[in-house]
Amino acid sequence: MGLVSTDSVILALDFGGTKLAAATLKVGERRWQQTKRVLSPPGAGASVDLQIMRAIASKVVQGQKIAAIGVSFGGPVDAQTGTVRLSHHVPGWENTPLQQLLENEYQVPVRVDNDANVAALGEYCFGAGQGCDSLFYITVSTGVGGGWIINGKPWRGADGMAGEIGHTVVDPAGPECLCGKQGCVERLASGPYMAQQARELLQMNPQRGQGLRDLVKNDLNAITAQSIAQAAASGDYFAREILEKAGEALGVGIGNVANIMNPYRFILGGGVTKSGSLFWQAVKRAARQTALPEVYFEIIPAALGDEAPLWGAIAIAQDVLSCG
Amino acid sequence: MGLVSTDSVILALDFGGTKLAAATLKVGERRWQQTKRVLSPPGAGASVDLQIMRAIASKVVQGQKIAAIGVSFGGPVDAQTGTVRLSHHVPGWENTPLQQLLENEYQVPVRVDNDANVAALGEYCFGAGQGCDSLFYITVSTGVGGGWIINGKPWRGADGMAGEIGHTVVDPAGPECLCGKQGCVERLASGPYMAQQARELLQMNPQRGQGLRDLVKNDLNAITAQSIAQAAASGDYFAREILEKAGEALGVGIGNVANIMNPYRFILGGGVTKSGSLFWQAVKRAARQTALPEVYFEIIPAALGDEAPLWGAIAIAQDVLSCG
Repeated sequence: MGLVSTDSVILALDFGGTKLAAATLKVGERRWQQTKRVLSPPGAGASVDLQIMRAIASKVVQGQKIAAIGVSFGGPVDAQTGTVRLSHHVPGWENTPLQQLLENEYQVPVRVDNDANVAALGEYCFGAGQGCDSLFYITVSTGVGGGWIINGKPWRGADGMAGEIGHTVVDPAGPECLCGKQGCVERLASGPYMAQQARELLQMNPQRGQGLRDLVKNDLNAITAQSIAQAAASGDYFAREILEKAGEALGVGIGNVANIMNPYRFILGGGVTKSGSLFWQAVKRAARQTALPEVYFEIIPAALGDEAPLWGAIAIAQDVLSCG
Repeated sequence: MGLVSTDSVILALDFGGTKLAAATLKVGERRWQQTKRVLSPPGAGASVDLQIMRAIASKVVQGQKIAAIGVSFGGPVDAQTGTVRLSHHVPGWENTPLQQLLENEYQVPVRVDNDANVAALGEYCFGAGQGCDSLFYITVSTGVGGGWIINGKPWRGADGMAGEIGHTVVDPAGPECLCGKQGCVERLASGPYMAQQARELLQMNPQRGQGLRDLVKNDLNAITAQSIAQAAASGDYFAREILEKAGEALGVGIGNVANIMNPYRFILGGGVTKSGSLFWQAVKRAARQTALPEVYFEIIPAALGDEAPLWGAIAIAQDVLSCG
């Protein structure tokens, strides 16, 4: 980073599906200088989100010189050109050359990548993956996604689609997923699907899950992964069962990945991974049972929480600085 | 390879479970100078196999100067030190420092790796994977194993166990595998298991599989993956079903790998992959259905057949020459 002034800042941007965040880090430092996080207004399109991002970026930058910009985007991205393919949540992003757009606007080097890849890199550089040259980061929340570090570098796949553990099939006789297949990890372990499963079973079994019913005041539509975890922790047997089934499905997926790729470490982040020890035990047990006995690995919680994409955005921006 | 005389040869050795092979290649050439292949005597241990290998190596070398030796070993190997962990087929190989042993004996650089990794490298350097920087080589015969090339280099995993697609679970309700799990790819798609499945079903269903029964002269114990493929090709509906089920299980495994790693190419070798177009169609169909629509890949047959490990042994030996 020879030519980069230590007065300048690195700008990290995170375009989530529903949230927008920006943060600045002084070159060479390890603590945020400024961070700002806002909700994307419902129904907003790409251009509205870009406008809001410009505004919060300006607030965190505060007129300082920007050395480089790293961007985490919640959707498929061509990381080589920094072109967004689309967003599954926000309309209008199709084929947006985001890197070029921001480079023209800010006149600094910009790098853009998909949020799962960026978060994996964030955990590798600044979080639970430090010093670990092969790891798979998995986020379990609304969906189930993943990002690879192999030989100390992101592995994005031949055409940028690596990491889709959420759509590996672990039970061909399982329920149908949005993607059209049956028994995907995402269909069995994501938050909304876990809640749906609980709702459907409770509708059919009026005697079951009293603890969970009480918790949501008998409004089954109010059930979330969080309330299931809470009821399970309070001893509701039905909720424990739901939670363990979800954990097992994720664990089988992880064990399969261990057999195929033998990474040193799995790092789990996202809301559902905050479901407590019952969930974690089920994940670890099923992963261990699915992996061959000779295949060693560890499964640990992410360290950076919601900030993983921002930290990863810092990492990709630093990378362009040290290469340029 | 500056200091290596072009008069010298590279020696490739292949310790299979039941076969031993040695071959020489003149440095800089692309055609075998000599090859020799023998069966390992039943009941032989490691030291007998080593003795036989010495003899056939001497025959192919014919007194020429050896530049380097590459070794493919049918079992887990620590590729960094060239130490054999064990053989699942031949006793006495536990913790044998094969690289060191051969270096002491021949006084040339030696490299040793597991046969699936070596075969993957062989196909990458000399076969169906040439020019393809990310590929997964799968061998389907007695077992189901695999080897990775990622970013143009072998990926062996954190502790050398990557590639075990055979023991990924594709049907948790499926039959029990030798490894203790249910519904592994190997349990559903390997040759011996396919034959076992056919036998068991025919015993229970005396009316079915007349074509296959005729082919093995009603001796169900004589059924092999090959006879199933032959009966299927002749139109026996039962044999077609068995073959397609096996292909589907392998295809689901491949589709899962595609979602997780997004390699550019899958290369399939081993006896079972010679089962004809019905098998290949089932593999490709299931893989395509299991992979997300955005995940591109191709599935093609291996080009080097039984010689893939020998060619890969050449590649690892060449690697040590160019690095030394």
